Amino acid sequence: MHRCALFLTKRVWQLRPFEPFQSPNFSLYSISSFSLLILSTPSSHFLSPFLHSLSPSSSMAPGIEALQRSSNGGSVRPDSHLSDDGVSSKFKVTVVGSGNWGSVAAKLIASNAARLSCFHDEVRMWVYEETLPTGEKLTDVINRNNENVKYLPGIKLGKNVIADPDLENAVKDANMLVFVTPHQFVEGICKRLVGKIRGDVEAISLIKGMEVKKEGPCMISSLISQELGINCCVLMGANIANEIAVEKFSEATVGYRENMREIAEKWVQLFTTPYFVVTPVQDVEGVEMCGTLKNVVALAAGFVDGLEMGNNTKAAIMRIGLREMRMISKLLFSSVKDSTFFESCGVADLITTCLGGRNRKVAAAFAMNGGKRSFDELEAEMLQGQKLQGVSTAKEMYEVLNHRGWLELFPLFASVHEICTGHLSPSAIVEYSERKPNFSVIDGHAQ
Amino acid sequence: MHRCALFLTKRVWQLRPFEPFQSPNFSLYSISSFSLLILSTPSSHFLSPFLHSLSPSSSMAPGIEALQRSSNGGSVRPDSHLSDDGVSSKFKVTVVGSGNWGSVAAKLIASNAARLSCFHDEVRMWVYEETLPTGEKLTDVINRNNENVKYLPGIKLGKNVIADPDLENAVKDANMLVFVTPHQFVEGICKRLVGKIRGDVEAISLIKGMEVKKEGPCMISSLISQELGINCCVLMGANIANEIAVEKFSEATVGYRENMREIAEKWVQLFTTPYFVVTPVQDVEGVEMCGTLKNVVALAAGFVDGLEMGNNTKAAIMRIGLREMRMISKLLFSSVKDSTFFESCGVADLITTCLGGRNRKVAAAFAMNGGKRSFDELEAEMLQGQKLQGVSTAKEMYEVLNHRGWLELFPLFASVHEICTGHLSPSAIVEYSERKPNFSVIDGHAQ
Repeated sequence: MHRCALFLTKRVWQLRPFEPFQSPNFSLYSISSFSLLILSTPSSHFLSPFLHSLSPSSSMAPGIEALQRSSNGGSVRPDSHLSDDGVSSKFKVTVVGSGNWGSVAAKLIASNAARLSCFHDEVRMWVYEETLPTGEKLTDVINRNNENVKYLPGIKLGKNVIADPDLENAVKDANMLVFVTPHQFVEGICKRLVGKIRGDVEAISLIKGMEVKKEGPCMISSLISQELGINCCVLMGANIANEIAVEKFSEATVGYRENMREIAEKWVQLFTTPYFVVTPVQDVEGVEMCGTLKNVVALAAGFVDGLEMGNNTKAAIMRIGLREMRMISKLLFSSVKDSTFFESCGVADLITTCLGGRNRKVAAAFAMNGGKRSFDELEAEMLQGQKLQGVSTAKEMYEVLNHRGWLELFPLFASVHEICTGHLSPSAIVEYSERKPNFSVIDGHAQ
Repeated sequence: MHRCALFLTKRVWQLRPFEPFQSPNFSLYSISSFSLLILSTPSSHFLSPFLHSLSPSSSMAPGIEALQRSSNGGSVRPDSHLSDDGVSSKFKVTVVGSGNWGSVAAKLIASNAARLSCFHDEVRMWVYEETLPTGEKLTDVINRNNENVKYLPGIKLGKNVIADPDLENAVKDANMLVFVTPHQFVEGICKRLVGKIRGDVEAISLIKGMEVKKEGPCMISSLISQELGINCCVLMGANIANEIAVEKFSEATVGYRENMREIAEKWVQLFTTPYFVVTPVQDVEGVEMCGTLKNVVALAAGFVDGLEMGNNTKAAIMRIGLREMRMISKLLFSSVKDSTFFESCGVADLITTCLGGRNRKVAAAFAMNGGKRSFDELEAEMLQGQKLQGVSTAKEMYEVLNHRGWLELFPLFASVHEICTGHLSPSAIVEYSERKPNFSVIDGHAQ
C-alpha cells in the first residue's frame, strides 16, 4: 500500500511522495474553510464510497433530479482495482481536451502522476487532430516535443503526457476522466463515450458553462453524469491558464457531492502543486455556478471601466454581482453553501475575471462607444471572431429569471443583458430597483 | 409625526421625504443579506430601544467587556426629545472631524438633513482650526464658500454645513455624533467631551483603525462607547472619499449592536443618497475589523503587484487575506458573522483598497526594490511623510497573534509583517505553512 502525502514545511510547500506525515504538528490546514484535510489516504479505503455516491440531494433542482435518475440507471462500477497489489490499484488519468486550459491541466496532472505512486505515470490526452501549417499532425508534434505548440506554446507538458487523436482509445483504460473542452462539445463527446469507458470511472469537469433551459440551467457536471451514468466533480478557480503554465502561485476549488470526500481528495492530489493549491468543498453546483456566472459580472465590471466610474463603483458592482451569483445559485440549488463563495472559485475567480479577462475588456470597449457598436462587432474586431461566454450566459440567465418571475430580484444580471442587447444604456449598470421579494425567495429556497 | 421614506422606482433611486410607501409592491430590499429593510419609521417609536442597548454580547472579547462595564456606569439618556411636536423631536447632527472623508461625510449628511424633516437642517462640523496661506481661518472660508478648500477643494458641502472651531460648542446640541478623525486623536477628543454632550447622544464612527494591546484590539467604536458611555455604530465600506465627493456610485455598511436596529436605520437614512447606498448589519466588530484589516491585505497585494506575479496570484492573495480577516475577527469577537464579509465593508472595500490605495502602492514599490529600501524611506518619498496604516496594523496584529500563539494560523498576516520588517523577502508572500490548529480554533471560537 502506498501513501501519497502532501507535506508542508515552514513557509515552503514540498511534495514528498511515498512518505507519511513526519510530524503530528503539521498537516494541510484547509486554506478556506477552517476544516482539516489529510491528503494521505490509504488506497485500500479510497474507492469504497463510490457505490454510495449520488445520494439524494436536498435540492430538487432539475439537474440534480436528472442526475439521480441517471445514476440509478447507470452502470455498476466494479471495484476490482481496489487491491493493494500491482498495477491494477493505480489510477489512470485521461484528459479529454487539449486547448489552452486542457494543456495546462495535463501539465499539472502529469507532474503528479509521475511523482505519486498511486497514479499511473502515463497521462493520456485526447487531442482533436489538426494539421499544422508545417504539414505535421498536432498529436505527432505534442508526442515528439512534449509541447502543445498550437494552444500552449513554449511550455513542456511532461514526457508522460501522450497525445491521442482517437477519443475511444484515449479513454478506454482510464478510471479518472478530466473533461476540459468547450462546453458546447460536451454532450456530443459523452454520447460517443457511452459504453466505451470503464465501469469504475470517476470524472471531473473543468468546463465553465452550462446548458440552459427556461426553467433552469443544467450544469456541465450534471450533463456528464447523466450521459455517462457516472459521478462528476468540478474544478474551478482563479485560473488564468497561461499564468499557471509559468507556475505563478494560484488556487482552485474542487466541488464534490455528499459522501464523495475521498474522490475529491484524490482529485486534489492529482492537481495540487506547490504553485497550484486546491481545496475541496462539498458543493458541486455552487462551485460550478461561480465559474459560469462570474462572466456576467465581468461584463458589468467592464461597463464600469469603460465609463471610468472608478474603483469604488467597480468594487460595488463586483460585490452586488457576487451577491446575485450567490442568491441565484441558492435559489436554483438549495444545497449551495454561502461559504463556497469565499473560495477560489467564488471571490477570487470573480476578482481575476473582473481585473483582466476578455468579457471585461470587450464590455469596456462597448461602454466606451456608448453601446453604439454591437458586441458582435466588437468581438469580431477584438477577439478574432471568438464569442464571449458572458454575453450568452447573461442571455440564458435572463430567460431563466424571466421565466421564474425573478427579474426584479436580480437587477445586475437583468441590466447586463438589457445593456448587451441595447435596451439600456451602459450607464444603467448603476441604476437598479428591486421589488419586494416574497418570503420564500428571501429565505433562499427555490420555489 | 413625520415619516422619512427611501423610495425606489424602476432602475432609479429617488429620495422622497414625507411620503409613505405608495405601493405594497415596492420597498428597499436589502442589497446584501436577503433581509427586508423598511426605512419608513414612525419617529415616536424610534428611540425606545436606546435604553436597552448594549445588551450583554455573546463575545467575551476584551473590548466588549469594557464596553459593557462602561455602559453600565454611563450616563442615563433621557428620551425627552421623543415627543412628536415641534423642533425637539428632530435629530441634530454634528460631524466631529473635517478632513477629506469627514468633509465628504458632511456633504452626504447635509443633503439628507436638508431634505428629510426628521433631521435638523443645520449640520455642524467641528474643524480643527488652521490658518490658510491667505491668512484666513479655515472655518471662515468653509462658512463663506461652503467648501473645505484645504481637504476637499472644489466640492460644495451644502449651505447647511456650519464649520465650528470650538469642539464643545459644536457638539453641545447634537444627539447624533459622527466621528471621523485620525484614529490616534479619538481618545483625547472623547476625554474633552465627557460631561459636555447631551444625555441622549448616539454616535457612529467612520474611523478605520484600532487601539491594540497584546491580548487583542480595542476597536474605535468601543473606545468611544467606553469614554463617553454611549452607544456607537460604525460605517465602513468601499469608500474612496474623492469618488463619493463627485457622486460616483458607491456603497457602505453600517454596523450596529443587538437591539439597535432602529438607530442603525436612522444612520442609514442620514447617509444614503442615490449614489451612496448604505446597508445595515448587526455586527459592529465584524464591520470595523474589515475596515481596519483590509490595509494589511493591501500590502500583500502590493507585494504581488511589485513582483508582477499576475492576476491569479493577486486574486489568490486577496482571497487568503479575506479568509484571515474573517478568521481573526471571529476568533477575537465570537459575535462576528460570516455574512458581514460579503458586505461593502468586506469584499468590496478589500477590492477597492487592493486595486488602488496607498498601502498597495508603497508595498508595490517596496517589492520592486526587493525590500532594500525601507517602508519609512518609501513613505517619506511617496506620501510626503504620511504613515501607512497597513504597516502599523500589521505590526499590531502580529503582536496579538504572537501573544495568543496563533501566528501559524495566519500565514499571510504574519508574512506581511515579517516582509515589512525585512525578516522575509517580498516573494515570501506566496510561501506559507500552516500548523495543525486545535479544534477550538477550527471551530472559530476564541480561546
